[in-house]
Amino acid sequence: MSSVLVISGSPSRTSKTERIGEHVAQRLATSGRTADHLRVRTLPADALLGADTRAPAIADAIGRVAEADGIVLATPTYKAAYSGLLKAFLDLLPQFGFAGKAVLPLATGGTISHVLAIDYALRPVVHSLGARHAVQSFFLLDKHISVVDGQLSVHPDSAEPLADVIEQFSKALDGVPHSTVLGRTA
Amino acid sequence: MSSVLVISGSPSRTSKTERIGEHVAQRLATSGRTADHLRVRTLPADALLGADTRAPAIADAIGRVAEADGIVLATPTYKAAYSGLLKAFLDLLPQFGFAGKAVLPLATGGTISHVLAIDYALRPVVHSLGARHAVQSFFLLDKHISVVDGQLSVHPDSAEPLADVIEQFSKALDGVPHSTVLGRTA
Amino acid sequence: MSSVLVISGSPSRTSKTERIGEHVAQRLATSGRTADHLRVRTLPADALLGADTRAPAIADAIGRVAEADGIVLATPTYKAAYSGLLKAFLDLLPQFGFAGKAVLPLATGGTISHVLAIDYALRPVVHSLGARHAVQSFFLLDKHISVVDGQLSVHPDSAEPLADVIEQFSKALDGVPHSTVLGRTA
Amino acid sequence: MSSVLVISGSPSRTSKTERIGEHVAQRLATSGRTADHLRVRTLPADALLGADTRAPAIADAIGRVAEADGIVLATPTYKAAYSGLLKAFLDLLPQFGFAGKAVLPLATGGTISHVLAIDYALRPVVHSLGARHAVQSFFLLDKHISVVDGQLSVHPDSAEPLADVIEQFSKALDGVPHSTVLGRTA
Repeated sequence: MSSVLVISGSPSRTSKTERIGEHVAQRLATSGRTADHLRVRTLPADALLGADTRAPAIADAIGRVAEADGIVLATPTYKAAYSGLLKAFLDLLPQFGFAGKAVLPLATGGTISHVLAIDYALRPVVHSLGARHAVQSFFLLDKHISVVDGQLSVHPDSAEPLADVIEQFSKALDGVPHSTVLGRTA
Repeated sequence: MSSVLVISGSPSRTSKTERIGEHVAQRLATSGRTADHLRVRTLPADALLGADTRAPAIADAIGRVAEADGIVLATPTYKAAYSGLLKAFLDLLPQFGFAGKAVLPLATGGTISHVLAIDYALRPVVHSLGARHAVQSFFLLDKHISVVDGQLSVHPDSAEPLADVIEQFSKALDGVPHSTVLGRTA
Repeated sequence: MSSVLVISGSPSRTSKTERIGEHVAQRLATSGRTADHLRVRTLPADALLGADTRAPAIADAIGRVAEADGIVLATPTYKAAYSGLLKAFLDLLPQFGFAGKAVLPLATGGTISHVLAIDYALRPVVHSLGARHAVQSFFLLDKHISVVDGQLSVHPDSAEPLADVIEQFSKALDGVPHSTVLGRTA
Repeated sequence: MSSVLVISGSPSRTSKTERIGEHVAQRLATSGRTADHLRVRTLPADALLGADTRAPAIADAIGRVAEADGIVLATPTYKAAYSGLLKAFLDLLPQFGFAGKAVLPLATGGTISHVLAIDYALRPVVHSLGARHAVQSFFLLDKHISVVDGQLSVHPDSAEPLADVIEQFSKALDGVPHSTVLGRTA
C-alpha cells in the first residue's frame, strides 16, 4: 500500500492553498492508498524557525515525510516564489529527504503572471532533495477556488487539468515497482 | 545621510551568516551613514510564521526596511536556495517594498556548487520587490569564515572580493542623488 | 558621451521584438548619447553557431558590445526562456563582457504567464557577464505591439511603463560618474 | 521497442560534451532499445537560426524528437546556463514537444560552481515542453572527461554517478507501460 503526504505552506487559517491541499489528499486516498495532510502553520513556530529538529512535533513531521512514497507540495505564491513558511520546513529535511519519492508541486496565486515561479523556484528545491520523479506542476488561480458552505469548489477551467495532474502523479506513484524503489533508496 | 539595513536569515545563534552580516554592517557604517542589523530569528516566531504584520515587533521590522536606503540580505544556502526563515520575513513586506533601494545579496554555503542559488533563486525575489539597483551578489564559503575569541576572520581569498562588493554597493547607494530616489519612489 | 547597444534576438524578419528594440534605441539616442542596434539574426549563421569569434562580422559585433556603456537585451520568450539565438551570441562574449555596463532586459511574449522568464532565466545570465547595474526588466505582450504603415504603436497599458524603464535605464547609465566606471572596470 | 534520442548542443567539433552524448547513447542502446545522436551543430546553420522548420534537415531532426520515447540533453555550461545552440534547436519544437517522454538533462562545465545551472535553467525549459518524467540531472566536470587515442575515459568520481543516472533514466523509460504512455500523449 502506498502512502502520500500533502504538505501545505500557507500561513493563513482560511487559506485556499490549504483547502486545495485537503482536496488533493482526499482525491489521492483511494483504493488502498493512504493520504495525510501536514499543515506547516500548525507546527510549533519557535521550533520550526529555530531549526530544532529534536522538538517532538518537528521530528514527527520529518518522520511522516520519510515514510511517504509520494509528496504533494502546496504553496501560495509570494514575491515570485514559494512561501517562506513551506521552505522553512523543507530546510529541516535530510539532504536527500525526497529520495525514491514521487513529488507533485502545486501553487496558488492571484495572477497567471506568477505561473513560472513553480518551475523556476520550487522545482530546483525539490530536485536538490533528490526526488525520484517530480511530475508536471500545476498553478491554480485564487479566483478559481471558492469555498461555499464549507465546500470547496474549483472552476471548471482549473478542475479538469488539476484532475489530470493528480492522475499523472498517481501513475508516477505506482509506476515503479515498490521493491525497486526501496532498492534504489537504500 | 543614507541608511542601510542588514537582514540576516539564519536560524542559528552561532551562525557564520549572521557574523558576516554584522561585519558588513560595521563596514558600511562610516562617514555619515548608519547601518543597522535585523536578525530575523529574533523576531517573535508565532507572529512571523502567522504573517501577523500588526504584531509590534514585526511592524517595527517592516518599518525599518521602509526607512532604509540600502538593504543587505545575508542568507545561508539550504536545499539549493535561500533560507525559509529569510523568505518568511520578505513575504511580509509590501509588494514593492524594495522600491528605490539598493540591495546587496550575500549567501554563505558549504560548497561552491551552491553559488548560483543566489542569482537564480534570491535575485528574482529581490526584483519582485521592486529594487532600484541590486548589485553583484557574493557567495562565501563557510570554511572561509572563522570566529576566534569572538573576532570574525575572513580568509584572504574571500576578504578581498567581499570588500569589493561592499564598495560597489556603497557606490550604488550614493550614485543616484537622494532627491531623485525620493522622486522615483513617491 | 555615453553609448548604448540594443541587441535583439528574434529569428524573424518581421519580429515585434526587433521593432521594440529599434524603438528603444531611438528613444535612448538623445542629448549627446549614441544608440546602435545589433540584430543577431543578421550575423553570419555558420560563424555564430560555430562560435567562430575570429569571423569579421562576429568580431565586430563583440567589439560593439565592449565599447558600449549600456546594453539593452530584447528577446522573444520561447519555451519559458530567452531565445536560443540571443544566447548563442551572448555565449561568444568574454567571461565578464558586461563589466561596468548598465543593462536593460526586455522580453516580448504571447501571454503574461511568461513574465517571470526574464528575471529567472535572463537576469542570471546578465549577472554572470558581470553587469554593473541590471535595472528592472520589462515584459511586453505581443498584442500590445502593432505596426501600422511601417509605424510602431505600443498599447497605452504598456507604453507608459516602458517609458518608465527606459527612463530608469537612462539614469543608471548616467548615475555613476564616467570616470568611476572606467576605474572600476579597468 | 523503446527509442532514445541524445541531443548534444556544443558548437565545437572536438567537444567533450558531444563525446559524453555519444557515450550515453551507446550505453542506452542495449537489449532491444535504439539510441540515436543528434549533434545540433551539424544542422544547417541558416535554417536553424532563421527558425525555418520546413528545411528538410530541420524537419527531419524535429521528427526524430517526435518519434523518440526518451530524450537526453547534453550541453556545455556557458554564461551560467545551457548553450544558445541547444536552445536554438529546442525553440523549434512544438509547444509540448516532450509530452509523454522521459528526459535526462546532462551538462558539462569547467567548475563545480555551475552545477545548479542545469536545474535552475535547463529543467524549466524541459518542463515547458511538457516532459512526462525529467529524471535527476547530472553535471560532469570537464577535467573528468578525457579522450585518449579516440577512446573516451571518464574519471571514476564521475563514472559511477553517471552510470547511476543512466540506470535511473533507463527505468523511467520502461517504468510506465508503453501503452499507457501512448494513451496519455495521444
